[in-house]
Amino acid sequence: MATVRLVHLKAAFRGWTPSPPTAWELLRLPNSSIRAFSSAMSPPSRAIVYDEQGSPDAVCKVKELPPLPIQDSDVCVRMLAAPINPSDINRIEGVYPVRPPVPAVGGYEGIGEVHSVGSAVKGLRPGDWVIPSPPSSGTWQTYLVKEQNVWHRIDKSTPMEYAATITINPLTALRMLEDFVCLKSGDTVVQNGATSIVGQCIIQLARVRGIHSINIIRDRPGADEVKQKLKKLGADEVFTEKQLEVKNLKSLLTDIPEPTVGFNCVGGNAASLVLKFLKHGGTMVTYGGMSKKPITVSTSSFIFKDLSLRGFWLQKWLSSDKSKECRDMIDYLLSLTRSGELKYDMELCPFEEFPTALDKALGKLGSQPKQVIKF
Amino acid sequence: MATVRLVHLKAAFRGWTPSPPTAWELLRLPNSSIRAFSSAMSPPSRAIVYDEQGSPDAVCKVKELPPLPIQDSDVCVRMLAAPINPSDINRIEGVYPVRPPVPAVGGYEGIGEVHSVGSAVKGLRPGDWVIPSPPSSGTWQTYLVKEQNVWHRIDKSTPMEYAATITINPLTALRMLEDFVCLKSGDTVVQNGATSIVGQCIIQLARVRGIHSINIIRDRPGADEVKQKLKKLGADEVFTEKQLEVKNLKSLLTDIPEPTVGFNCVGGNAASLVLKFLKHGGTMVTYGGMSKKPITVSTSSFIFKDLSLRGFWLQKWLSSDKSKECRDMIDYLLSLTRSGELKYDMELCPFEEFPTALDKALGKLGSQPKQVIKF
Repeated sequence: MATVRLVHLKAAFRGWTPSPPTAWELLRLPNSSIRAFSSAMSPPSRAIVYDEQGSPDAVCKVKELPPLPIQDSDVCVRMLAAPINPSDINRIEGVYPVRPPVPAVGGYEGIGEVHSVGSAVKGLRPGDWVIPSPPSSGTWQTYLVKEQNVWHRIDKSTPMEYAATITINPLTALRMLEDFVCLKSGDTVVQNGATSIVGQCIIQLARVRGIHSINIIRDRPGADEVKQKLKKLGADEVFTEKQLEVKNLKSLLTDIPEPTVGFNCVGGNAASLVLKFLKHGGTMVTYGGMSKKPITVSTSSFIFKDLSLRGFWLQKWLSSDKSKECRDMIDYLLSLTRSGELKYDMELCPFEEFPTALDKALGKLGSQPKQVIKF
Repeated sequence: MATVRLVHLKAAFRGWTPSPPTAWELLRLPNSSIRAFSSAMSPPSRAIVYDEQGSPDAVCKVKELPPLPIQDSDVCVRMLAAPINPSDINRIEGVYPVRPPVPAVGGYEGIGEVHSVGSAVKGLRPGDWVIPSPPSSGTWQTYLVKEQNVWHRIDKSTPMEYAATITINPLTALRMLEDFVCLKSGDTVVQNGATSIVGQCIIQLARVRGIHSINIIRDRPGADEVKQKLKKLGADEVFTEKQLEVKNLKSLLTDIPEPTVGFNCVGGNAASLVLKFLKHGGTMVTYGGMSKKPITVSTSSFIFKDLSLRGFWLQKWLSSDKSKECRDMIDYLLSLTRSGELKYDMELCPFEEFPTALDKALGKLGSQPKQVIKF
């Protein structure tokens, strides 16, 4: 068994030798109960494990987990790719309200290829591409065994990195466009944090439906290129926060109607700008707080402008048994990635370089695209 | 014609002598168009008028308005009583989004007795008690002529001061309990500004339906008596803001469930306390901002606690042709005042002492009950 701090991860990947499993490693998936004997076993799995909550670069270790029995209705999947999402980091830090008990394997979504199936499994066979849908914990490892109902087979012509990342961020974008306001072609939405994956998806999913988007980004070097990039994706308007320091925000809009719904993943001033753009009676949906600043709203915004403020959390939406709807939406989103109508920035990173990918995901190396581990 | 600053109002009431009307006084009601000849005329009316927007004690004057022709479908009402509401003051100051054009007569609700009716008026006759419903401008005067549809006849056994004040604050309380969350007997609501008229009404209207209330009041001398008073009205819990400076707010609740809806008329810290009390998935409705401080909300309140923030403005609700529903609710509320199930603090003030009543309503004389002018 190899247990090493991430700073030594590369060495661990080179020098790893198997050793007898500890008690908890026999359980492998912390949530599973002790399993009955089974003839088929999974291969051993190399995994990013944390034994305690804390800063991910301090608590994450690479471990070799022993083979696991494959029950009749289990599917053993060889993972191909899995992203590092902000919520993965928050789960490891212990600040996310819903998280697996420690010790745990990191990751919550990803794409894999079926390696072997239990005797009672129907509709899946070795070689199929599958994703856990709804998303499920423990995807940062080379072999993952879960009950057949967890897995959703997808079209193998899908670009691997999109298949690995479709179930959280793009689904959040799709649900938020559907669940709060009845949007029609020709309507407008406004958002801050427009360069995030959710932000890029909102622009494109809106465009597919003929809905305009107003996008707010941070002031930073290269803002002009960012604007051009978002406009290429279909953004109607892109403003930096500084550009919006004007008395009459709405005078900046020329041809498009006032937005009826806004999306906020930043907080602070960037949230106030979304509120200012909204039409009378509009709704702002908060799904993130990147600035770590709260949202401040005037009394008159509620009384005289009749604004509504709501929140969206995919995990809650998924908890109300939406597996069928969820998979239909995943198929729709993946079809858009295949046709090129939905795309977003990602960087594939070999599993051996996980520490670098984690540093990038933690923001230690400046603004970086979404990191996707390739196993 | 007498036009005097309010500081000289008492003298004006004593020394008034009629003089020829000015052009606009011929119109009397600023919103009416020039009327056709009619044989019947109203008596002259003594009114609180403002020619320009500004501080009410600077711009309000008492004026003698000349007789007005009574059209076929008009009703001339001798006003009996009318309150000074905060929104009346905001209209005069010019900070209320909907207000009559100046010059205007103050006031927006009240009770009167039918003095005379036009030839086509049906269902109303001299001696009836009527209120403008929906509420309507210009009630601070001794005789008010408006179209018959404006007037709603009420039971003459109703206490006059309640009839004068039922259409704005109690109706706001009733609508807010109905329109946002489906409340059942045994549920709980939370509110700040609990000593306001709306606050007192929420306590009692909730109690009538078997709904618990948690009430937040300011820290001030006499807070204990205020608590006792609100509990007598039916409040389950009353806390001062200082009492709520504890880590776990909800540990203060013993027998009642967490509130699903909260009402905020203060803003600032008092609004944050309402949010803290709310149950997961709860809604806070803002209908006032007495502290003049905005509302500050954490990102996690929206995402992980799934709170919704909304606003309520009676004027908007009324604008969507709710006259029938509105009158049914008024009748219900008035029946509660007659049975003693709905009461709130008021002080009747003779019209001659309007300047004192206005000073009290403006908060110049400390905390005072609602001022109701008696004509």
